[in-house]
Amino acid sequence: MPATDTSTDNPFKQVVENYRQRVDAALDRWLPSADTTPKHLHEAMRYAVIGGGGKRVRPVLVYAAGATAGINPEKLDSIAAALEIIHAYSLIHDDLPAMDDDDLRRGRPTCHKAFDEATAILAGDALQALAFEIICEDEAIEANAETRLKLIQALTIASGSIGMAGGQAIDLHSVGKKLNLSQLEAMHKLKTGALIRASVIMGAMNSAECTPQMLDQLDQYSQHVGLAFQVQDDILDVISDTETLGKPQGSDIEQNKPTFPELMGLEASQDYALQLHHQALDCLKDFDDRADTLRDLSAYIVERRN
Amino acid sequence: MPATDTSTDNPFKQVVENYRQRVDAALDRWLPSADTTPKHLHEAMRYAVIGGGGKRVRPVLVYAAGATAGINPEKLDSIAAALEIIHAYSLIHDDLPAMDDDDLRRGRPTCHKAFDEATAILAGDALQALAFEIICEDEAIEANAETRLKLIQALTIASGSIGMAGGQAIDLHSVGKKLNLSQLEAMHKLKTGALIRASVIMGAMNSAECTPQMLDQLDQYSQHVGLAFQVQDDILDVISDTETLGKPQGSDIEQNKPTFPELMGLEASQDYALQLHHQALDCLKDFDDRADTLRDLSAYIVERRN
Repeated sequence: MPATDTSTDNPFKQVVENYRQRVDAALDRWLPSADTTPKHLHEAMRYAVIGGGGKRVRPVLVYAAGATAGINPEKLDSIAAALEIIHAYSLIHDDLPAMDDDDLRRGRPTCHKAFDEATAILAGDALQALAFEIICEDEAIEANAETRLKLIQALTIASGSIGMAGGQAIDLHSVGKKLNLSQLEAMHKLKTGALIRASVIMGAMNSAECTPQMLDQLDQYSQHVGLAFQVQDDILDVISDTETLGKPQGSDIEQNKPTFPELMGLEASQDYALQLHHQALDCLKDFDDRADTLRDLSAYIVERRN
Repeated sequence: MPATDTSTDNPFKQVVENYRQRVDAALDRWLPSADTTPKHLHEAMRYAVIGGGGKRVRPVLVYAAGATAGINPEKLDSIAAALEIIHAYSLIHDDLPAMDDDDLRRGRPTCHKAFDEATAILAGDALQALAFEIICEDEAIEANAETRLKLIQALTIASGSIGMAGGQAIDLHSVGKKLNLSQLEAMHKLKTGALIRASVIMGAMNSAECTPQMLDQLDQYSQHVGLAFQVQDDILDVISDTETLGKPQGSDIEQNKPTFPELMGLEASQDYALQLHHQALDCLKDFDDRADTLRDLSAYIVERRN
């Protein structure tokens, strides 16, 4: 995941790579095979989720928050997969012509370009149902039924009309409008923040050793990291190139979307991202070295190049 | 609900009207108000679910199956609402230009016509999350956490890629193709059958008195009724008019969709619907008079005019 260090003796890189492989294996297990009827729908679902090598930020946050709270990764595979599946479905729908109208995602044709619009809509719909199904079904979670319900509830709220879907609705209604900084942050808090927050909370929720105060500190961490992620996304849309991004550079500006660099200037946005990173670290000051992956992840989020 | 008898002294009509009012009140309680941010999204969600007076077949099946199994309706309000919300989201997405491209639904403009395509896609997405959320949260269900998880699991499977969404994918891929009868039935078993089946099972699932054998008989009943519902839908597309239907008459034929009347002829389709109705009644032969609403409902489904 870290673009700046590709050596294999970087412990953070190895941990993240391990988490990525875990969630990719879980996704492969949980997604119906492309041989299962209706084949073209299952092909589209697998295409959107498994191919293309996403960054897997949300699954990595699940595992890293779990490690901080003393939960083994094998208990978190389906939770990590569910978060990535919700994220993938939202990308399929966001890319549709009626929404952001993007042809390129992770360096490949978007789902509605590789298949067709109707299949893309249905693949997104079916993926959402699958995310909740696997939290119901996975025995490896080892949570009692009450905790499992809390996990599902957290994911429904983070995904719904006062979470991710609501944020996307506000985003689309903001095109061409002048938002101020607090309105822009409120939008991102829902659009990307809600799912990032859910990743951290759902990763740590089933911990016996995590006190409500610790969960609250992790929640604060996730909010800073979630916002930093979006600020850096806006920065990359200005300074990166299409090949590195895997999606069209400059598309925010082209679509007349409000961004942090537009409101604050590029340099101030970069300072703001760093400030959010330090605030995120501050939320972890009472945690031991098992929180190091969360710390490194916060750094990665503001240093990444795609 | 019965189009052929509008007298208020028809007990079936009164029971059904009571169930409809119950679920409408539950939907109004569970859907975020149109004053909640993002307002336009919540307006669209409410427009699609509450306005327009749907038949509420799935909620009525939930309550009627519950009554058969000795469950009070107040324990079923959120389950009935969840089924209707999943149904409503599927209608929003099915009506989109990339899918069936319908402008009229329940006699009003479809959601993407009344709002816009992006809002309609997101309203559907957010509704799906809401359906699962309310089963997590409603205390009136009085189910233990294990049963609640089973309810959510049943709804995820019925909604997903080997349920409703999968059926719609097969349907869209069948346009202009020659399906035989068993292929047509397999498609409808997923597209509308899965959710009708889930309505009956979820209505009776939390019953102490319902044996596995009784649940199986209810499941058989729901499969006959689900298929009868679709056969009658196809018949109405041929013999009814746009005003009565609330959607364009003849749209199946215009869209070159395979139908029962096309494959079997109109008269044989009407005979088939009646035969399925009698098979449904046969599945209820071991039940007492608390199953009468299910019996009447089966009759209504093959007698309805819209």
